[in-house]
Amino acid sequence: MSSLKNDRFLRALLREPVDMTPVWMMRQAGRYLPEYRATRSKAGSFMDLCMNPELACEVTLQPLDRFPLDAAILFSDILTIPDAMGLGLYFTEGEGPRFERPVQDEAAVAALGVPDPEQELGYVMDAVRTIRRELDGRVPLIGFSGSPWTLATYMVEGGGTKNFAQVKGMMFDRPDLMHQLLEKVSASVTSYLNAQIAAGAQAVMIFDTWGGVLSPADYRKFSLDYMKRIVDGLVRESEGRKVPVILFTKNGGQWLEQMAATGCDALGVDWTTDLADARVRVRDSVALQGNIDPCVLNASPERIRDEVAKVLASYGHGPGHVFNLGHGIHPNVNPEHAGVLVDAVHELSKAYHSPGVKGEKWGD
Amino acid sequence: MSSLKNDRFLRALLREPVDMTPVWMMRQAGRYLPEYRATRSKAGSFMDLCMNPELACEVTLQPLDRFPLDAAILFSDILTIPDAMGLGLYFTEGEGPRFERPVQDEAAVAALGVPDPEQELGYVMDAVRTIRRELDGRVPLIGFSGSPWTLATYMVEGGGTKNFAQVKGMMFDRPDLMHQLLEKVSASVTSYLNAQIAAGAQAVMIFDTWGGVLSPADYRKFSLDYMKRIVDGLVRESEGRKVPVILFTKNGGQWLEQMAATGCDALGVDWTTDLADARVRVRDSVALQGNIDPCVLNASPERIRDEVAKVLASYGHGPGHVFNLGHGIHPNVNPEHAGVLVDAVHELSKAYHSPGVKGEKWGD
Repeated sequence: MSSLKNDRFLRALLREPVDMTPVWMMRQAGRYLPEYRATRSKAGSFMDLCMNPELACEVTLQPLDRFPLDAAILFSDILTIPDAMGLGLYFTEGEGPRFERPVQDEAAVAALGVPDPEQELGYVMDAVRTIRRELDGRVPLIGFSGSPWTLATYMVEGGGTKNFAQVKGMMFDRPDLMHQLLEKVSASVTSYLNAQIAAGAQAVMIFDTWGGVLSPADYRKFSLDYMKRIVDGLVRESEGRKVPVILFTKNGGQWLEQMAATGCDALGVDWTTDLADARVRVRDSVALQGNIDPCVLNASPERIRDEVAKVLASYGHGPGHVFNLGHGIHPNVNPEHAGVLVDAVHELSKAYHSPGVKGEKWGD
Repeated sequence: MSSLKNDRFLRALLREPVDMTPVWMMRQAGRYLPEYRATRSKAGSFMDLCMNPELACEVTLQPLDRFPLDAAILFSDILTIPDAMGLGLYFTEGEGPRFERPVQDEAAVAALGVPDPEQELGYVMDAVRTIRRELDGRVPLIGFSGSPWTLATYMVEGGGTKNFAQVKGMMFDRPDLMHQLLEKVSASVTSYLNAQIAAGAQAVMIFDTWGGVLSPADYRKFSLDYMKRIVDGLVRESEGRKVPVILFTKNGGQWLEQMAATGCDALGVDWTTDLADARVRVRDSVALQGNIDPCVLNASPERIRDEVAKVLASYGHGPGHVFNLGHGIHPNVNPEHAGVLVDAVHELSKAYHSPGVKGEKWGD
């Protein structure tokens, strides 16, 4: 493996000094980029794109060729795991992801196995290896997975849902069965992320998109506890460096203290929580990643810079901040606006870091 | 006006002693009730139902005939105000409410007037008067409005939205224009709620459905400040009693302290916040209304009782709790399950109130 030319992102996640705040954007490889749409139409379906390591690599690198981003993130989908478990993932226009065989009873839970990441999910590991080769050490590569609870919502509902009536129905009426399901999914996520790390992922992020629809007590029992199990089960070192783990519960701003106590290295924070408050609440025990409202990218360049300045000021001085959106970039964003944001983060953040500290690293 | 036979709800909102915890359910008059669906099909469109005071009264009273609820809530829609402002409200199947003439530029904001509640919104006041007459003092009647920010989201987007890109675009790029819009909407909401109180509403609730999509700083500036203006402008006494005001920001659990400081009497709380924590945070300065997950109603009766017990225990002893769902009841709920919830609240809550305290009141 070639040495890493820019390790600002990894250093910030470990709360080590950097020269400027690293930045990447959730869904940075996506529909707002015309070059993404071109590759996507070449690939066929969305899952065809995920399953083709060369094309997945191509779209992963596209935003890096446009913007001086400090990290790449594997192009994939959180539903690869349930698909590998045999649920039959497909996508419908307008309705989003669906499963042919939802998991709604004991027999269905019992029939689930833990996929072998190098077999059923080998296309993901191939994509990780291809991307690492093509990145050639420019920036670190982030691997990721959905959280067990988030994956379970899709598995039980058979797709996206507004009310979560079925998955919560199982949770309230059959907590034993829900725990069985979550245990299998957690084992699958752990082995999936460890395989990504073995294949070359240099940091991993767990996306808990739907933990925020639970009560505090149910969040602990049905989402957080399983994320903690995963954190405990991850191989945290690779290629001679620590592999940081980021937890992100959307709408989880009320639970940051508990999330920080899982042993993860960093928390994703959405824009409904002020980073200054978040930092006080977690007592600088973890790094924070976020948290500008993605809608800011619909505003003028001047306004984007103002809002970037506000987010940087809210985190304040010192290490431990990775700049990001509080949620994925919207498909209708002007790519030039994303560039304005990335440049503003680098330029305006220098004042928050001690002079002379280098984020760039030469040689190893 | 006849005297109020059951004032448990009003007493709890003012943190006065009661014999048991009062309960009502958001959207208690709604599609989960077959009798509602029958009236709805008789009325024509959804707005035809809202605009017909006799039928609006009929559906308002339906849940009270089934369950021993402690309050009635006016059957109406939050979008009556923008409709009265001339935006042309209509409903599409599957897509929800839409406006023919969204408000997206200076000219459109300048053209907006403040509706006269007894003229353009006279049908709402007629419904309030009709319901009060038919209620005949059984329980208090709640009036309501959407919050200015929430109404503005629909007015700018022209309907429901997933990303809030347009309304936030205006907020970020033209904060001056957004404030002009919010000022007009706030004036309209204030006069609308005061007219409901004059017509007979005995408590009012402001639904801030979309305040929770804002950052803390933007929430204060663009949602909370305008709700405070409304609270300041309301006539707070009628028929010789105080008219309590309830604020409810969905996903606003992080901001309860600031909401309590507006001068309102009670806060609606969704299920992502523990009532014990909420009570400590607001220091018992306001009553709390909530907060069971509406999905609990999809579980078995035994489980519903367990979850009711948990919510009652989380609030704990003493006055100041109004039991409610944390969001509107879902259309697919079995009405018998709603009855189980209401009965469980009354039965299980007696232990949390001092013996001998009466919520029923005879005479005046």
